[in-house]
Amino acid sequence: MARVNEHFLKLKAGYLFPEIGRRVREFAEGAPEKAKRLIRCGIGDVTEPLPAAARSAMKEAVDELGERSSFRGYGPEQGYEFLRKEIVENCFSGMGVSADEVFVSDGSKCDTGNILDIFGTGIRVAVMDPVYPVYVDTNVMAGNTGGGGANGRFEGLVYLPCTAENDFSPALPEEPVDLVYLCYPNNPTGTVATKEQLRRWVDYAREHEAVLLFDAAYEAYIRDPDLPRSIYEIEGARECAIEFRSFSKNGGFTGVRCAFAVVPKELAGTAADGERVPLHGLWLRRQSTKFNGASYPVQRGAEALFSAAGKMQVGKLIEHYMGNAGLLRGACEEAGLEVFGGEHSPYVWVRCPDGVDSWGMFDRFLREAQVVVTPGAGFGGAGEGYFRVSAFNSRENVEEVCRRLRALLGA
Amino acid sequence: MARVNEHFLKLKAGYLFPEIGRRVREFAEGAPEKAKRLIRCGIGDVTEPLPAAARSAMKEAVDELGERSSFRGYGPEQGYEFLRKEIVENCFSGMGVSADEVFVSDGSKCDTGNILDIFGTGIRVAVMDPVYPVYVDTNVMAGNTGGGGANGRFEGLVYLPCTAENDFSPALPEEPVDLVYLCYPNNPTGTVATKEQLRRWVDYAREHEAVLLFDAAYEAYIRDPDLPRSIYEIEGARECAIEFRSFSKNGGFTGVRCAFAVVPKELAGTAADGERVPLHGLWLRRQSTKFNGASYPVQRGAEALFSAAGKMQVGKLIEHYMGNAGLLRGACEEAGLEVFGGEHSPYVWVRCPDGVDSWGMFDRFLREAQVVVTPGAGFGGAGEGYFRVSAFNSRENVEEVCRRLRALLGA
Repeated sequence: MARVNEHFLKLKAGYLFPEIGRRVREFAEGAPEKAKRLIRCGIGDVTEPLPAAARSAMKEAVDELGERSSFRGYGPEQGYEFLRKEIVENCFSGMGVSADEVFVSDGSKCDTGNILDIFGTGIRVAVMDPVYPVYVDTNVMAGNTGGGGANGRFEGLVYLPCTAENDFSPALPEEPVDLVYLCYPNNPTGTVATKEQLRRWVDYAREHEAVLLFDAAYEAYIRDPDLPRSIYEIEGARECAIEFRSFSKNGGFTGVRCAFAVVPKELAGTAADGERVPLHGLWLRRQSTKFNGASYPVQRGAEALFSAAGKMQVGKLIEHYMGNAGLLRGACEEAGLEVFGGEHSPYVWVRCPDGVDSWGMFDRFLREAQVVVTPGAGFGGAGEGYFRVSAFNSRENVEEVCRRLRALLGA
Repeated sequence: MARVNEHFLKLKAGYLFPEIGRRVREFAEGAPEKAKRLIRCGIGDVTEPLPAAARSAMKEAVDELGERSSFRGYGPEQGYEFLRKEIVENCFSGMGVSADEVFVSDGSKCDTGNILDIFGTGIRVAVMDPVYPVYVDTNVMAGNTGGGGANGRFEGLVYLPCTAENDFSPALPEEPVDLVYLCYPNNPTGTVATKEQLRRWVDYAREHEAVLLFDAAYEAYIRDPDLPRSIYEIEGARECAIEFRSFSKNGGFTGVRCAFAVVPKELAGTAADGERVPLHGLWLRRQSTKFNGASYPVQRGAEALFSAAGKMQVGKLIEHYMGNAGLLRGACEEAGLEVFGGEHSPYVWVRCPDGVDSWGMFDRFLREAQVVVTPGAGFGGAGEGYFRVSAFNSRENVEEVCRRLRALLGA
């Protein structure tokens, strides 16, 4: 008898975005005319065209594959050096990261999930609350939690609440933990961490021999040069942190698929006998055995984002989305709402007006304004009382959303 | 303290292909002139240009991403329906497979490794010997084995020897197992299974509530219409088998990356309380949580392989490689060697002449003929005394390899 992984059975069927989809469909069936006005500010997916530099590079790469002399089959599992070198020069200059510490992949969702393969089961894991659900669900699947409670939390996971009351910067865990997920700029709250805040985490990790999983997928949206873009700007981070980055939200690669992880050679975990085992070798072995490299034309497309033209095109995309974020922030503030994020992030995190909960606000926006937002409670208990508005949209749609927000909330 | 997954530490450092690479480099350093003549018939990577149909489709898809109106971001994690429908119509006609049982991915290596996520640890696993090393290594990593012995075998794994003596069709396991890896046409032996042989496995699996993991990556090389191309040609297979397929070896996608798995809805595993749990839902959950879909242009490229032009181009590729396989078979036979495979597979599996072992034969080919083959022992103990020659090469190279083989072995 083939036994199944029963940890999967702890997961709730109703994942956030399917539930949003269900409510939207239900609404559309009941009010087909109104549904034509729907504007989605829910899921965090880009909307603007892929940069021209990436497109030319991808098409050239496809042509290369059409000639025997330039054909390429299996590439290095870790990614091509041409891309890893650009990554190091452009993202980690002066931070001591070398090209062989970079692992190119087909997505950060894969990387943040798969990384658990190299850790032992039963490790104690801390996540922020609200949280990107993938961090939680992959730990449930890996058996690092107990069952799910009525409050939506899983036993054994350490939740670190992030609310307006603590300025979205959680206190350090009171009990020792082994793995800490940090995401800055944060999904979903859109808030950022200062160097001092990250230093506190690095110090904590070094003291407790914990590992930080630093998700910097939204790094390109940081506009203040004093804010850290990489965990490796913090001294000592090479001994305690893995960083995840993606081309999804800067180059618009959500459908093209390319990301990378950095695993410094100083970073080690612990074996049962106390021996320190470098994580770099474990991740290399994991990727060599269970992955076959990202698509060659895709890697060429990612490389092109670092060309002069590519950087300019990415800059314009960011400017566009951040312009949207500014408009959304403004409209919410005018409507008298308390607004967070959206200054170094494409996500605006908004406190619900008195007495309305997250899903209540979701339903109200859907029914009365035909605007789809994401209910904060969907990201965890501490997200209750907030909703997320995504700036990933056309300017036209965002302007219309702002008009409807003002009309609905009577600003 | 972050504990590492200690199962990784059971794996040997010397993986087959790195060891081959090391010996080739060492030879090249010692004999740089001779090394210029090197022809690699080792790794199973395609060499011929990507089909034109796939290239046009990929470039069109990239252009689509350049227009706001046709831009696509995140796709369905399971793959686009346009591709899943073509797969069902072209690969599983009349076998009862539906499009929502197909899961598109970025590679079969990923799929065959990741599938273990949905099974419980401690399941009993059977593999053939010789075996594609990924099946073994991923089970070691998942904790489904004990330590590795001096003979290269891992405790707890059930090895099913496949040699000329049993016609490369192994006996059923003597002890009950939960998971059986089958690969037909086989890598590395190049041999195929008849419908009767597969029926025996399906019957076994149904009797023992075991799951068959059927790897059909080389299906396109089958030329005899009576041989099964899919496990679902066997009655009852929908209740006990997952099939893995790839565009790597038919469409030359080893660098482009696209594959798929079929998980029938009838297929279930068992929970601790005896409840039967459908694997389809578990795999859907796994893929939705830890994967974000294959690259959109890549999926369009794969779709194009099913067009009339695409099929003709794939047919020509197969014809080319199978022509190579025929030449290699012929040359080995003329040299008096005993030859297997290579008739419905791009791999020719050859018995070493008396008294020479696999690595001995490898070294002899390298030093005396500058031809790189793969030593059978690298695929497992029962591969000792054989070597694999890959037909993935240019015709010119294959003809030269044949000349050298004849000269070396004095035919």
